[in-house]
Amino acid sequence: MNFLEQRIMKDGVVKEGNVLKVDSFLNHQMDVSLMNEIGKEFHRRFADRPVTKVLTIEASGIAIAYAVANEFNVPMVFAKKSKSINLEGEMYVAEVESFTHKNRNNVIVSKKFLNADDHVLIVDDFLANGCALQGLISITESAGATVEGLGIAIEKGFQIGGRVIRNLGYRLESLAIVDAMDHTTGNITFRKQ
Amino acid sequence: MNFLEQRIMKDGVVKEGNVLKVDSFLNHQMDVSLMNEIGKEFHRRFADRPVTKVLTIEASGIAIAYAVANEFNVPMVFAKKSKSINLEGEMYVAEVESFTHKNRNNVIVSKKFLNADDHVLIVDDFLANGCALQGLISITESAGATVEGLGIAIEKGFQIGGRVIRNLGYRLESLAIVDAMDHTTGNITFRKQ
Repeated sequence: MNFLEQRIMKDGVVKEGNVLKVDSFLNHQMDVSLMNEIGKEFHRRFADRPVTKVLTIEASGIAIAYAVANEFNVPMVFAKKSKSINLEGEMYVAEVESFTHKNRNNVIVSKKFLNADDHVLIVDDFLANGCALQGLISITESAGATVEGLGIAIEKGFQIGGRVIRNLGYRLESLAIVDAMDHTTGNITFRKQ
Repeated sequence: MNFLEQRIMKDGVVKEGNVLKVDSFLNHQMDVSLMNEIGKEFHRRFADRPVTKVLTIEASGIAIAYAVANEFNVPMVFAKKSKSINLEGEMYVAEVESFTHKNRNNVIVSKKFLNADDHVLIVDDFLANGCALQGLISITESAGATVEGLGIAIEKGFQIGGRVIRNLGYRLESLAIVDAMDHTTGNITFRKQ
């Protein structure tokens, strides 16, 4: 097991309905040392790519994007979620439909901060059905920029998001892929990578 | 002028209606080196305080909180904004009314992540009328924890938030206090500190 899988085993909580709570260290309270380690690990895995910008979506992706951008020494950009589109200034907008909640959200990035010269590493804390990631890919492509890869802390391997993105030909690295969880025992099965 | 004031002069844009756009380096695209410097500066200013936790509110506060928590080597917690209260688990909730938008929002933190032993440094990117900060103070006090201070990147000195918080006796440090802006000339007047 790698450092993140070990931490999930130690402090993650499995709840009914395939819910994995990691809010004590990843997405409500944040362990900054762990974030730094995640940043270093993604830097190691994507060291061969000419990354010019790290892109994520608010809110919990911001800390991971910060850690990764710090290692690459490039700016980070976070996309905003909005029901309505504020057209003040020109924005890239991707409308994404949530598989889980069935609602629609706009994912928005100002055109000032992504352009055709950019080589983008997209990162986020969680990947389940991948709606948010699809929006970030769509926005990057709209800008004419290159998606150099996607880095995810925790992928739910039993949901569809990871497979879709790999099928589309993108390089997706997930630090921990959860293939199964049992809330009665608390057991978590990680995919061997 | 300090490093942040210099950066605001260089890359900030003054718009009509006392709007200061700093989205190219602080709250949409983020300059990670600048964030690191902000983290070091707040660590220097609050070095005499026994900080155990850094608290902020989603979304743009997260990067600053990360940088500050990294310097203090303590966890960070970000409060969530919500129209509705999800009571799954016990939450500290502060209802804050926006002075600007007149709407109400709940500021929410899980009770697991703040307790009476905590010494909290509250940070955020902007302070105008201070509604969000008032919510974060209220939540910290509800937890029985100690507010050790508040660190703000940019304070709008011509709005009421900073004065209210200082009048209440809290130690508030703002790296840049904008006392006046002129969108016709682009001129920005910083308060001498």
